[in-house]
Amino acid sequence: MSPSSGSDDAAAVYTYLGPAGTFTEAALLRIPGAADAERVPSTSVNSALEKVRSGGVTAAMVPIENSVEGGVSATLDAIATGGALQIVAEVLVPITFVLVVRDGITELGQIRTVATHGHAWAQCRGWAEENIPRAEFVPASSTAAGALSLLEPDAAYDASICSPLVAEENPLAVLRSGIEDNAGAVTRFVLVGRPGSLPPATGSDKTTVVIPLPEDHPGALMEILEQFAARGVNLSRIESRPTGQKMGDYFFSVDAHGHVDEARMADALAGLHRISPAIRFLGSYPSAEQSEVSRPSVARHNTDEAFAQAHAWVRGLRGGS
Amino acid sequence: MSPSSGSDDAAAVYTYLGPAGTFTEAALLRIPGAADAERVPSTSVNSALEKVRSGGVTAAMVPIENSVEGGVSATLDAIATGGALQIVAEVLVPITFVLVVRDGITELGQIRTVATHGHAWAQCRGWAEENIPRAEFVPASSTAAGALSLLEPDAAYDASICSPLVAEENPLAVLRSGIEDNAGAVTRFVLVGRPGSLPPATGSDKTTVVIPLPEDHPGALMEILEQFAARGVNLSRIESRPTGQKMGDYFFSVDAHGHVDEARMADALAGLHRISPAIRFLGSYPSAEQSEVSRPSVARHNTDEAFAQAHAWVRGLRGGS
Amino acid sequence: MSPSSGSDDAAAVYTYLGPAGTFTEAALLRIPGAADAERVPSTSVNSALEKVRSGGVTAAMVPIENSVEGGVSATLDAIATGGALQIVAEVLVPITFVLVVRDGITELGQIRTVATHGHAWAQCRGWAEENIPRAEFVPASSTAAGALSLLEPDAAYDASICSPLVAEENPLAVLRSGIEDNAGAVTRFVLVGRPGSLPPATGSDKTTVVIPLPEDHPGALMEILEQFAARGVNLSRIESRPTGQKMGDYFFSVDAHGHVDEARMADALAGLHRISPAIRFLGSYPSAEQSEVSRPSVARHNTDEAFAQAHAWVRGLRGGS
Amino acid sequence: MSPSSGSDDAAAVYTYLGPAGTFTEAALLRIPGAADAERVPSTSVNSALEKVRSGGVTAAMVPIENSVEGGVSATLDAIATGGALQIVAEVLVPITFVLVVRDGITELGQIRTVATHGHAWAQCRGWAEENIPRAEFVPASSTAAGALSLLEPDAAYDASICSPLVAEENPLAVLRSGIEDNAGAVTRFVLVGRPGSLPPATGSDKTTVVIPLPEDHPGALMEILEQFAARGVNLSRIESRPTGQKMGDYFFSVDAHGHVDEARMADALAGLHRISPAIRFLGSYPSAEQSEVSRPSVARHNTDEAFAQAHAWVRGLRGGS
Repeated sequence: MSPSSGSDDAAAVYTYLGPAGTFTEAALLRIPGAADAERVPSTSVNSALEKVRSGGVTAAMVPIENSVEGGVSATLDAIATGGALQIVAEVLVPITFVLVVRDGITELGQIRTVATHGHAWAQCRGWAEENIPRAEFVPASSTAAGALSLLEPDAAYDASICSPLVAEENPLAVLRSGIEDNAGAVTRFVLVGRPGSLPPATGSDKTTVVIPLPEDHPGALMEILEQFAARGVNLSRIESRPTGQKMGDYFFSVDAHGHVDEARMADALAGLHRISPAIRFLGSYPSAEQSEVSRPSVARHNTDEAFAQAHAWVRGLRGGS
Repeated sequence: MSPSSGSDDAAAVYTYLGPAGTFTEAALLRIPGAADAERVPSTSVNSALEKVRSGGVTAAMVPIENSVEGGVSATLDAIATGGALQIVAEVLVPITFVLVVRDGITELGQIRTVATHGHAWAQCRGWAEENIPRAEFVPASSTAAGALSLLEPDAAYDASICSPLVAEENPLAVLRSGIEDNAGAVTRFVLVGRPGSLPPATGSDKTTVVIPLPEDHPGALMEILEQFAARGVNLSRIESRPTGQKMGDYFFSVDAHGHVDEARMADALAGLHRISPAIRFLGSYPSAEQSEVSRPSVARHNTDEAFAQAHAWVRGLRGGS
Repeated sequence: MSPSSGSDDAAAVYTYLGPAGTFTEAALLRIPGAADAERVPSTSVNSALEKVRSGGVTAAMVPIENSVEGGVSATLDAIATGGALQIVAEVLVPITFVLVVRDGITELGQIRTVATHGHAWAQCRGWAEENIPRAEFVPASSTAAGALSLLEPDAAYDASICSPLVAEENPLAVLRSGIEDNAGAVTRFVLVGRPGSLPPATGSDKTTVVIPLPEDHPGALMEILEQFAARGVNLSRIESRPTGQKMGDYFFSVDAHGHVDEARMADALAGLHRISPAIRFLGSYPSAEQSEVSRPSVARHNTDEAFAQAHAWVRGLRGGS
Repeated sequence: MSPSSGSDDAAAVYTYLGPAGTFTEAALLRIPGAADAERVPSTSVNSALEKVRSGGVTAAMVPIENSVEGGVSATLDAIATGGALQIVAEVLVPITFVLVVRDGITELGQIRTVATHGHAWAQCRGWAEENIPRAEFVPASSTAAGALSLLEPDAAYDASICSPLVAEENPLAVLRSGIEDNAGAVTRFVLVGRPGSLPPATGSDKTTVVIPLPEDHPGALMEILEQFAARGVNLSRIESRPTGQKMGDYFFSVDAHGHVDEARMADALAGLHRISPAIRFLGSYPSAEQSEVSRPSVARHNTDEAFAQAHAWVRGLRGGS
């Protein structure tokens, strides 16, 4: 088994942006085998990734887009630099919140304080203003930490907003559920391991790369994107991120549909490497959506067969007849 | 005076992502006239922008890139939807931290707890692990809130990490300064008003737009970027953001060098409007960097003069001889 | 009446690449009113166009693509330089040949010499090799000149290959018709006048321009073509032509689908003028094919309405609200 | 020795667009070894190329750009279809004309008739109008044929315009030389053989391809050109040519700077093959200009080394670590 995929190894050890009960742990539990594996919470994305780099764990689950617990920019930056890492899976988790209360609280009107993570508070703000207008927000380091504080003997706060998971796994009283303002929101998480053998192509995959902008001139980004577009490769996410070295120095963090084992993606990556040799490959892995719809439609001229025929033709030209 | 610029109006009222003493207030104080104007803190980016929309304040200062206090994604999303807003200025603030302590603490070795915002903690983590390894992080809703809690009679925590501003404006004891891990980091803030007259072009300006992706096909993003590249307009930031309506539905948030009063930018925006008519213009405003270096070099064929000559030529063709 | 269209003016005088009876005259006769107008043959494309420039005639009909009588490159070069000219109409003429013979010849087997233009000979060569293998080709300055030489008292040659028109208009004996090797071939001719008011847009038009290549670098041609492609304008012909000034100095001669009175074409031409200010506009005129099929399909974002809305939006941004 | 290069083989047999003494023969004589080889004139480009296809000759010299004798479109079309052929060399010949006269003519004023090819007449027309205004043009099938007719016992014409070569090789009286209107004009010729081993890359080479337009939509040509531009490959000639099958069906005839043995050209050709699998390769051969100036400057990211590194990197990604 590949040490990087870590998905069905009895001995695999996982870490995640903790504590237990966060949406990130919920994401990890979706990985086959993870429920029975050892799971170690980390207090930050950086420390989770460091555990992977040092070999202390097999892989780390971290949020990468739209997270309730924060850490998205941190994740993008942390995997873009430092020791090489590889994304081996992505997981989508529907974001839905429950309101849990301490012993003694039975009605909304009794709630004066709500301890939760700032991002969770932001996502339930509308509900809170309407239903518990007099409640004060108290920041917690995570939704789980806020919720668990209600179980302490002399709980300092009345209520908390957290994931259904933490409520299920602990003796917490749920007063309301589905209190998020934007029903249907999901957060994207990725499982990050050390570089190793790639998950096989499924036909509906993503490839993540980090591309330092070679030069800050009009069209530099265009040249990068042309490498994808010229091979019919669609992007699902692009972000410019400051390198932190000097203002105006950027890299691009990109998710593209396809797998490096597919010719069109391999050709696009080769083109990118030519114009930005410091490009960092962060993995090809199955898309979280494995429906027919998510399967990219590949025009005939971008199929593996078209690439193979084209290269055979050029080899023939070079060899003479 | 323009109601949107709000920069030198005696009656201008400002809000900012508070509380007082945050880096966001430091950014606001850089706006001419703001130091003497009424300044109202807001508890979230959304509530700050709502105060602008409702007319309660003249303008709001909010972080837009790399913020210590969080709120960057929140800002991008908040100005992309809802009532129309306009960015009228941008400000860069160097991010540097001080360690402040409660009464009675005089040495690092005494510190057991540090109350601060999670983003600030992340940016000083290396320093903390080395210098106060036994100190525990306690989340606060902002760096200023954490620091001010040290002034309470029975301060619950020993120390806080905050901006130099909050330390200066309050009777806080600074034990160490410059404790950030990454010296030289800056955060970008924007002053947001209601749509109104534009700040005049300075030759070194930025224009911010939000562009819904018209169709999710390879090259859709390329078509958008070609509109900029074809007129020699460089981008300084691009981010794809999920619309939140359905997975795979994106918009692009873009900062481009130039002012809508310049022909090349106006032409690029017209091209964008054709392919994505729901494009939202968020303002043209002076770049925070006003050096010669920041002034974009404009090729002859992208000057206002070249555009004027080209349009005059076409008008001549249409009008006959 | 416009001096340049010359299509229905009783006083219009036309010239054409002669002599009478050539395919070029056949093309001219397709122009409404030309049959009753004065028609002056010219001995070369250059002299025909000079008559237009000097005001001696209203317009000249000359071949521009695939001509039997030659002159295509000559035409492209002649209208690309010198005094300004304007194409006001295009005409497609099916190219079909007849074999005419001198008095006394009644069978193919008698034919020893065939006087015709070299281009006509080339297009009937297969037929000739099969049917009159012993006949020798004698070059004539035009198909009509070759044919008319058969009417002279002591005709030096036995036969000629010419247009049906010259056979109809003269007492020439047609021995065979439809002898062209490639049935269905057509030649494209253009009617060239002085710059003046444009023929109105019909919805199925062409625009011809001559574009000096601004710089010989990879992508210079791309930049030119992007101006068309970015507005959904299709090309029906493109040719690089040496300027004749120094080797490697090129201009492009281009036919594009659309009319300068359409916004997408006007915008493309303005873009071209910016990058190659010496661009020469040679007219917008109805396509010879006026079928539903020839009508270019215009995507919503390239319609006049989309352009109008885009420009109105940008004007609104500049004016403030 | 390669049967296709035919440049220094004692047994090589050449044909050319004749008769002897034309500029095309002058071009052939520039090929090393051709002066001593058997040279067979052909009466048309098509028949010259057929001799190559059938194996009757080693190679054929034919005009391809700006020819005095005509045949340029014929050449483009003839090598684009039918049995496969390969260009193995190109030659530039300065086009300069001499006026030769029949016995008995000693002054310009005596000249009443000038027998020459129509293209030659066109290129000396200005000189003729000024210096022999009363002389009549008589078409000849080639410049050489016109000139040689002056040597017949009862020469029918007074003078001819021809190449210096035919005057040198025959007892022709030269009355004036350098009579061309456009001093410095050159014609480009190509030596065409059967497909075989390629001439080695010299660093200043050309590659010729014929590319059927895959689909007639805006941007189809752009997609083709992007394949070149994306690899920094410059074009020196492009022409759209009707396929002759139906109106609006085009192919592109393209000369590009570089050799298929160079990675950037091979990659561009592979890209072209994907989008237009019926592409026809017509050879990589040394540029006629072998100066430093003609050597294309290749950006670092388009060098063979950059391609090799990029492909090695992708292979590494696919193989795992």
